[in-house]
Amino acid sequence: MNYQHILESLYEQLKPSIGSGAPADYIPELAGVNQAQFGLALHTIDGEDYTVGDADTPFSIQSISKLFSLTLALKQLGNDVWRRVGREPSGTAFNSLLQLEYEQGIPRNPFINAGAIVVTDMLCSSYKHGDFALDRLLTLMRQLAGNPQIAIDNEVLQSELNNSHRNQAIAHLITTLGNLQNPVDQVLQTYFSHCAIRMSCLDLAKACHFLIDRGFCKNSQQTLVFPRQAKYINALMTTCGTYDAAGEFAYRVGLPCKSGVGGGIVAVLPGHFSVCVWSPGLDNNGNSLLGAQALEELTTETALSVF
Amino acid sequence: MNYQHILESLYEQLKPSIGSGAPADYIPELAGVNQAQFGLALHTIDGEDYTVGDADTPFSIQSISKLFSLTLALKQLGNDVWRRVGREPSGTAFNSLLQLEYEQGIPRNPFINAGAIVVTDMLCSSYKHGDFALDRLLTLMRQLAGNPQIAIDNEVLQSELNNSHRNQAIAHLITTLGNLQNPVDQVLQTYFSHCAIRMSCLDLAKACHFLIDRGFCKNSQQTLVFPRQAKYINALMTTCGTYDAAGEFAYRVGLPCKSGVGGGIVAVLPGHFSVCVWSPGLDNNGNSLLGAQALEELTTETALSVF
Amino acid sequence: MNYQHILESLYEQLKPSIGSGAPADYIPELAGVNQAQFGLALHTIDGEDYTVGDADTPFSIQSISKLFSLTLALKQLGNDVWRRVGREPSGTAFNSLLQLEYEQGIPRNPFINAGAIVVTDMLCSSYKHGDFALDRLLTLMRQLAGNPQIAIDNEVLQSELNNSHRNQAIAHLITTLGNLQNPVDQVLQTYFSHCAIRMSCLDLAKACHFLIDRGFCKNSQQTLVFPRQAKYINALMTTCGTYDAAGEFAYRVGLPCKSGVGGGIVAVLPGHFSVCVWSPGLDNNGNSLLGAQALEELTTETALSVF
Amino acid sequence: MNYQHILESLYEQLKPSIGSGAPADYIPELAGVNQAQFGLALHTIDGEDYTVGDADTPFSIQSISKLFSLTLALKQLGNDVWRRVGREPSGTAFNSLLQLEYEQGIPRNPFINAGAIVVTDMLCSSYKHGDFALDRLLTLMRQLAGNPQIAIDNEVLQSELNNSHRNQAIAHLITTLGNLQNPVDQVLQTYFSHCAIRMSCLDLAKACHFLIDRGFCKNSQQTLVFPRQAKYINALMTTCGTYDAAGEFAYRVGLPCKSGVGGGIVAVLPGHFSVCVWSPGLDNNGNSLLGAQALEELTTETALSVF
Repeated sequence: MNYQHILESLYEQLKPSIGSGAPADYIPELAGVNQAQFGLALHTIDGEDYTVGDADTPFSIQSISKLFSLTLALKQLGNDVWRRVGREPSGTAFNSLLQLEYEQGIPRNPFINAGAIVVTDMLCSSYKHGDFALDRLLTLMRQLAGNPQIAIDNEVLQSELNNSHRNQAIAHLITTLGNLQNPVDQVLQTYFSHCAIRMSCLDLAKACHFLIDRGFCKNSQQTLVFPRQAKYINALMTTCGTYDAAGEFAYRVGLPCKSGVGGGIVAVLPGHFSVCVWSPGLDNNGNSLLGAQALEELTTETALSVF
Repeated sequence: MNYQHILESLYEQLKPSIGSGAPADYIPELAGVNQAQFGLALHTIDGEDYTVGDADTPFSIQSISKLFSLTLALKQLGNDVWRRVGREPSGTAFNSLLQLEYEQGIPRNPFINAGAIVVTDMLCSSYKHGDFALDRLLTLMRQLAGNPQIAIDNEVLQSELNNSHRNQAIAHLITTLGNLQNPVDQVLQTYFSHCAIRMSCLDLAKACHFLIDRGFCKNSQQTLVFPRQAKYINALMTTCGTYDAAGEFAYRVGLPCKSGVGGGIVAVLPGHFSVCVWSPGLDNNGNSLLGAQALEELTTETALSVF
Repeated sequence: MNYQHILESLYEQLKPSIGSGAPADYIPELAGVNQAQFGLALHTIDGEDYTVGDADTPFSIQSISKLFSLTLALKQLGNDVWRRVGREPSGTAFNSLLQLEYEQGIPRNPFINAGAIVVTDMLCSSYKHGDFALDRLLTLMRQLAGNPQIAIDNEVLQSELNNSHRNQAIAHLITTLGNLQNPVDQVLQTYFSHCAIRMSCLDLAKACHFLIDRGFCKNSQQTLVFPRQAKYINALMTTCGTYDAAGEFAYRVGLPCKSGVGGGIVAVLPGHFSVCVWSPGLDNNGNSLLGAQALEELTTETALSVF
Repeated sequence: MNYQHILESLYEQLKPSIGSGAPADYIPELAGVNQAQFGLALHTIDGEDYTVGDADTPFSIQSISKLFSLTLALKQLGNDVWRRVGREPSGTAFNSLLQLEYEQGIPRNPFINAGAIVVTDMLCSSYKHGDFALDRLLTLMRQLAGNPQIAIDNEVLQSELNNSHRNQAIAHLITTLGNLQNPVDQVLQTYFSHCAIRMSCLDLAKACHFLIDRGFCKNSQQTLVFPRQAKYINALMTTCGTYDAAGEFAYRVGLPCKSGVGGGIVAVLPGHFSVCVWSPGLDNNGNSLLGAQALEELTTETALSVF
């Protein structure tokens, strides 16, 4: 399949819409990003890369980082991860705190904030301190992407720490319910730090190679997780990867996806390719408006999807 | 791939466990079914059928019927279906009534009871009366399976009508919220009737051919729905097909699935095969205990899954 | 205290506002009542009656009937009543169905619809059938008021039965949760029947004599309930008598109150007087707009309240 | 009425039960209090005091302090208080966080934790800092009780600060929803400080004089709040003063009450007397087991209640 041709045609089609969508509004640093940007990188199982637009521009990966913190936790703790976090979609965001209370502090899945905070807490414990956990996670992500320049954006981090009341509420509630082992401040510092990592579309597409190659990481030539675990992560991305729009994404895109409010979305077709699209303007669900359109077009054009 | 060999090996492996799981307890007719039964039928995109065990024994399809009522509604109404029912997973069963009130009577998806009742109401309106809708649906299912003997089990139907308080609560609440157009009694009579249809594993595996063949029905040699719609239905089965265990099924099985409390589960691998497994004993989530194991083994053995 | 003077002065003050508020909108028969009506009757512990305005005009008592169905149930069953219904305020109407599920079908108190339906079910069981229970309740209310003309408004009843989906949802849900013993249709027929009773302000003020006289009914010269039970009912009126505005009424009026969407409100000052005010226009909480104002003025003017 | 005789007879009756109930378990300092204590003080509108048992022993007033923080806020801000906190009972504790989200951060009333935290925030703003607010509140309580020795228990305070995750969750959630103006740490420090005040039964009975005397404080010979405001506070105590047992207390005791997990309960009969009872053992709702019994007996014996 001529991916470069497909990507360019898709880019031409979306160009008039670049800049549409709403900026992320919850922290000033994200709101201030130039909206008129769009990048897409596709990375095949054979290691070939195809890009269009701003595919080399680093952006704030935000919730996409939850994919990697979960992967590291699975690598470290195996199935023990599932003692403290579920694997089911969460229903409406509206009653997330109700769910936590009703289900004794066990978040529904690792991709909602509550779940990712618990996963971060697991890493804090496993590596003895959040700072060590963060170092390990950053190293892993550099290896996966084959890019030692990947780093945390400290201004975004500070801004998140200054606007953290909802996540503090969640973390304190989970502590009360007995499912957080480390101090709230340490866990949230670590959590916001990995959310504030900056990577490009190309970095992220490469970093997801292990999800399309049964757990094998091409850049470091190592098996990161078992084939079964790679399959598990893809399943979770499908059912829970795009907040309250997982059904919508499965429906429209038909690929396992993970999105972030920085405007990035990664998607994978196991055995074929990983892709990362980025455009800062968001839709009502907090997913990149153009990113979702691009992925929908891509699977429609190529007739390649998991369904 | 030698499917018959795989099925037989799988059957041998599960034989010692046949009879395990809890009987469906909510209506006497289902509770009375002999637990020590197990059947599996696999139907390929080329039209070949492979079976083991009680694959020809008809059983009560229950919620699997929701797959076909949705398909018929999509065929009749197209995207208008989505004006009255959502496409997102529902979270916990616990707060389903809360969700209905909060989201103005729009059920989260067509596979929870509330959603299937609304879809049935659409069919009642579209065919002018529930009886006509039911006739049409039954005809469709006979055509899809190529089996004119498929029929409703009237004892199960009566039993369901006598134990219908929760579904009556749901239907009256939706009526209050403005999302039911026909009388509650008519809608529920139609709804319970299609849940009470009896089919065998082989019937169901064949009937799902359109989901693996981009909407094309092999038995009637007709295009039932558009390719895009078949993909949509598969996506919905993945995110919402097994009640509060959709994440678990995506994780363990990795195929779009739809289960029923009669102990049946259908699963599809688009482009390859549809499969139906049946064993009456249920797990805590109301899905067939052995059925889920069989599907998990099947995808593990064959390394065939969508992820 | 010169009650007649107080009532007349209060009437003069409110006259310009008569007709304000919104008509009850949930059934046509209530919506069609002439809004420009206002009546008030005050009945003292000595048996004296004072009235202004349309105090002799019968109106639909609606939820005020819950006061009398509870009284009859307490008389028949004593404290066994509290095995099946609670005594606590219900919080927001919004999550009433959630509460029922969470608390296993035990409604929070006898004055919310769910609770009154369960109380009616108790009466259906106690008198062997809803029709007999209704006869007994009607007889009781005629005796309490000393007025044999009190009757059910059949047009209102029919209208309620035709608009009963929410209450049907509640009743079926309670049945599913195991707290309804009689058929939903029978219980709701009985429930709507007593809601559709017509009485005047004077009837209701007299009928509440037992609440100000330690359980003694002046008209029938009998002790209806124990002094402790009369105190209990007054306490329940205070915490739960005006739906989601019980706090507001305690705050503004400071008397035990029970309201109905027909525009009536009864209030009592134990040891002193019972009062009934009626004006059809409602406020946002479904309580009579002018009725609440009249009661607030009455307790402010007389400096008589329980607080 | 011979109050001393009534109190002594009541004391004799309860003596065998002293020590029953469960100790407060949420902070070690409260759990360590000697359970075998019981005190009761009754203070009349004429200024006479009657006591039995450990009526002079200071104990941790905990949530009883919410009565005084509300009073101070009403004195400072008048009806503006009600812009940021409601006046309705809260229903089950279970969904309190759900309620906050659903009602945009406006707690249902000033006596649940969320509401008292918002009231404390009002005082922090009104007095420019929590420390000044706390000074003012402590001064007020000393004046009301006529006891300059009243002070904060610093060990209890530290213990509360170390076990504050649920209240931190609440405060951060309210901040996110826009209804907290001061830093969470400052507000909670102030809140826990006033909860950690130690007073005796006699102190508290005297301090509530203004609630039985239309806002007039006997000890300082000043009008603290308007008569209408005193009535309002009494109404709120009745509908919301004992957490999820307000209905139960209205029913059994029939007086406006405010309880704390330190085992104290204050109750008032406007125009007659205020009373404070203390015994550390708690019932399932977190109210003093013997305290509730004592109050129930008192109102049954004297036939004095508001209902």
